[in-house]
Amino acid sequence: MRIENFLESSKEEKKIDYFIELHIEQGPVLENEQLDIGIVTDIAAPTRFQIEFLGQASHSGTTPMIYRKDAFTAASEFSLFLESMMAEEIEYNTVTTIGECIVKPGAMNVVPGNVEMKVDVRGVSVASINRVVSKIYSKLEEIEETRNVRSNTKVISQENPVSMSESLIEILEAKSVENEFTYKKMNSGAGHDAMNMASICPTAMIFVPSKDGISHNPKEYTSTDQIMKGVSLLKDAVIELACVSGEW
Amino acid sequence: MRIENFLESSKEEKKIDYFIELHIEQGPVLENEQLDIGIVTDIAAPTRFQIEFLGQASHSGTTPMIYRKDAFTAASEFSLFLESMMAEEIEYNTVTTIGECIVKPGAMNVVPGNVEMKVDVRGVSVASINRVVSKIYSKLEEIEETRNVRSNTKVISQENPVSMSESLIEILEAKSVENEFTYKKMNSGAGHDAMNMASICPTAMIFVPSKDGISHNPKEYTSTDQIMKGVSLLKDAVIELACVSGEW
Repeated sequence: MRIENFLESSKEEKKIDYFIELHIEQGPVLENEQLDIGIVTDIAAPTRFQIEFLGQASHSGTTPMIYRKDAFTAASEFSLFLESMMAEEIEYNTVTTIGECIVKPGAMNVVPGNVEMKVDVRGVSVASINRVVSKIYSKLEEIEETRNVRSNTKVISQENPVSMSESLIEILEAKSVENEFTYKKMNSGAGHDAMNMASICPTAMIFVPSKDGISHNPKEYTSTDQIMKGVSLLKDAVIELACVSGEW
Repeated sequence: MRIENFLESSKEEKKIDYFIELHIEQGPVLENEQLDIGIVTDIAAPTRFQIEFLGQASHSGTTPMIYRKDAFTAASEFSLFLESMMAEEIEYNTVTTIGECIVKPGAMNVVPGNVEMKVDVRGVSVASINRVVSKIYSKLEEIEETRNVRSNTKVISQENPVSMSESLIEILEAKSVENEFTYKKMNSGAGHDAMNMASICPTAMIFVPSKDGISHNPKEYTSTDQIMKGVSLLKDAVIELACVSGEW
């Protein structure tokens, strides 16, 4: 059954009371802070851009610095701005990444005439994301003026963050305390199934640590002991919810 | 005949009294300053590096900014430093370029773990080039420390700038004045045959303007009028030299 059909039929038949997802963190926070459990409060949503800088390819030896229209130094200025700007959004855990950057024509003796980048903005605060997006557009305008290059910007995706159920978060906290698991409430920077379930029923997520924050990689690792703490917490929460709903 | 053999036989037989090369500028200076002629004083030499930044690839959504080891923001900082540093060397006309930059793994949702760049440093002042090279190494050390990344640097080439003959430069200046050609004495940022001839005999170069500084490109253009001024200057200088040497 396709997930859309499953969700649709679930809505109609009210088959699902609660949804709790157990997952590795896929990030370095729990390991670095030596915690057993992450209780997710919000799942971040990506806003993504394709940005192209258009300068003028020219000979690296014969073009004085003042006559250059270097698309790569323009991209470098944008990259550093994007990074430094995040200090102002640190309390909202918004993050930005340039994961793709293609420099053309790409020869050692040619000032780059063209750079194509993909930019990923993620956060759980819509206000913070909107501030970042607005500053991105302002910075691009500034770079066009000061560096005599042009830029093309295309929004590739724009999704909304999703909040987890407060009552389920409370239960997960209480059960963590009972089990003497160290924990923190945190956002999920990555997308998860729980994003889709949150519109169907009260939804929550439990994170267990990821070694070195590595995921989608053969080096991905979480110890059996760490996994079992997540499983215990999931089990205790499910039993509690079943008791509350009288179906235990 | 291979150029090396030709040069070797020329040395032995002392066949060549002077060498004057006529060339398009391949840069934007003469056009921007609306001059007819460039008289080359020195030919710049490239010092080239391959620089690799090694960080840690990680998930763009789940890796907080403070835990990142982003090879691309490291490369961006290096790129902007390299550019801004040139303001201190402007009187020596030294230029630096990052013409190649490959970002890996190169996915929108992955913080870059690896960046490979090629850096081209060109100048006619050995002291200026040496200052730039020294600052490049210092900056790489600083970036390694502050950004928790590593860098590998390999010198690809290191050549010496070549000076043109002062007596030939004087003749070219005098003949430009006689012809009422506007001119400037300037460096050549690109390499030319004259670099090799300068060790054989007194050598000089004449530049004519390049439209938009474009070369090695179908758009390369110099008007017939501009070319003819260069040809006239070359002819007049050759006649003058032939008269001086008594072979006219």
